[in-house]
Amino acid sequence: MRAMVMTDFGGPEVFELRDVPKPAPGIGELLVRVIAAGTNPVDAKIRAGGSWAGITPPAILGYDASGVVEAVGLGVTEFKPGDDVFYTAEVFGNQEGTYAEYNVVPAAIVAKKPPSLSHFEAAAVPLAGGTAWEGIVRRIKLRVGETILIHGGAGGVGSFAVQFAKASGARVLATAGPENQETLRDLETDVPIDYRNSDVFEVVRKATAGRGVDAVFDTAGGDLLAHSIPVTRPFGRLATILGPSGDFTQAYLRNHTIHGVFLIRERARLEEMTPVLARVRPLIDEVLPLEKVAEAHRRMESGHGRGKIVLQVAA
Amino acid sequence: MRAMVMTDFGGPEVFELRDVPKPAPGIGELLVRVIAAGTNPVDAKIRAGGSWAGITPPAILGYDASGVVEAVGLGVTEFKPGDDVFYTAEVFGNQEGTYAEYNVVPAAIVAKKPPSLSHFEAAAVPLAGGTAWEGIVRRIKLRVGETILIHGGAGGVGSFAVQFAKASGARVLATAGPENQETLRDLETDVPIDYRNSDVFEVVRKATAGRGVDAVFDTAGGDLLAHSIPVTRPFGRLATILGPSGDFTQAYLRNHTIHGVFLIRERARLEEMTPVLARVRPLIDEVLPLEKVAEAHRRMESGHGRGKIVLQVAA
Repeated sequence: MRAMVMTDFGGPEVFELRDVPKPAPGIGELLVRVIAAGTNPVDAKIRAGGSWAGITPPAILGYDASGVVEAVGLGVTEFKPGDDVFYTAEVFGNQEGTYAEYNVVPAAIVAKKPPSLSHFEAAAVPLAGGTAWEGIVRRIKLRVGETILIHGGAGGVGSFAVQFAKASGARVLATAGPENQETLRDLETDVPIDYRNSDVFEVVRKATAGRGVDAVFDTAGGDLLAHSIPVTRPFGRLATILGPSGDFTQAYLRNHTIHGVFLIRERARLEEMTPVLARVRPLIDEVLPLEKVAEAHRRMESGHGRGKIVLQVAA
Repeated sequence: MRAMVMTDFGGPEVFELRDVPKPAPGIGELLVRVIAAGTNPVDAKIRAGGSWAGITPPAILGYDASGVVEAVGLGVTEFKPGDDVFYTAEVFGNQEGTYAEYNVVPAAIVAKKPPSLSHFEAAAVPLAGGTAWEGIVRRIKLRVGETILIHGGAGGVGSFAVQFAKASGARVLATAGPENQETLRDLETDVPIDYRNSDVFEVVRKATAGRGVDAVFDTAGGDLLAHSIPVTRPFGRLATILGPSGDFTQAYLRNHTIHGVFLIRERARLEEMTPVLARVRPLIDEVLPLEKVAEAHRRMESGHGRGKIVLQVAA
């Protein structure tokens, strides 16, 4: 089968199109014909030097996939050949990723593809959308009528977060660079904030009449979470998908709760998201052929992405 | 009336017994004859230089009280003279504290004294017990069968935390200095840990067979919370009553939730605690006459307290 193999750790040029053996599903596993593979910033971090992730070159990267079940392993009863599915794969050791024509995956972390989404759209959802769902819905438990500040609202995770927050009935303040203000408006952000040309926290103060927000979701990192504490109301909930830095000594005086969010693969979350995906459109920056994965990585590493880049794997 | 007045910011010697006018209750307020006043570490911090708390000497400090309603202000229907009550007062501006024979307090933050407790015991509960309740029950939401690590289990807040955790059906690991190991055992701590003579986190690892705890409650501060992250299971909940320092970058990888806890006065929490106070005994270090408040402060500032110090106000 065709696969884009990471031949070494390094720059985007380490990918090479190779013909590799088609894998076979083991007990409880599915063999999936990948139609579309999603790319994620973590792919680029691993490519740049990811022995910490338990991956050794040559290896096939890629966490997200949408495709068709080609064969099922022993003990699999919930899927049959021909089913459309989507998932975030585990990639380490002998578990190869989704930058390939075929992928083997434990059935337990796979769900039926939402009927409302194309394979390209579905491949953009599992990791980024799942992380946003985990933060906004399961951890922050955002409620109708609340106000949330989302750092990085035009990015892969952030664009899902803005939409899940809107779908939850909340008022959304979100930040992005000047080039992505239009994107924030397209996502129906109530208060789009240009973090380069304005004082984010002053805008938040004014937009909330000095009362601050009920919740914060940080997809950008650094000390943004710490700086958000003074504009978050007492008993507010903050979540981050990155290791936060800065000074948190005031958080206890405001009775804040801070959630760290890191995606654990599971079918249940994919199924929970499915009905909501009928009204939330994955924000897709570009669809590129599998062979152009290096280009996808370059764009993700620029930090100015607008949603997700998806690889077309099947012809 | 008699009151121990803080004549200036400074050492414990700034307290002076004075005869001051008896206050009168305003709309929605109670005049309470204080029988016992609880002392708290924050009293000593304010005495040492507490303009940050909105207090200017001369002033009467003291947050906790248990006593008898002497008179009620206009609009108060839920209390009548003669009722036994307990509460944590607000102290700032013209609101004086409980180191005095009488105290005026908004009825909204007062509850009936639990019948299971003496006035001395009840005066030890509101601030420290309320903070422990807020952390263990309302924020961490500790459940039967879970395991919790409590830093500072023999202190004012910690001794309530250990007991509320045990009453919740949890397994409790708690730390204290060598002089308070006996106290931890008296509180039925499952794994008492001497933080001076053992490696706390190594003990936790061994006692949990390497799996770590479900929850952490930190009453001691510094970087203890940050160091607790590696011994807390994925999706674990941590709470602190102080501004935490240290490195929290790993917390998101473990999907941890960190709660900052700072007591807000309210009647509801006092009433929630009341049935549980029938089986949780406030740990009282010593009962001293009101005039010996300086001694109480010296003992609290030593950092080796064993539970609470209560002042006997009424003869």
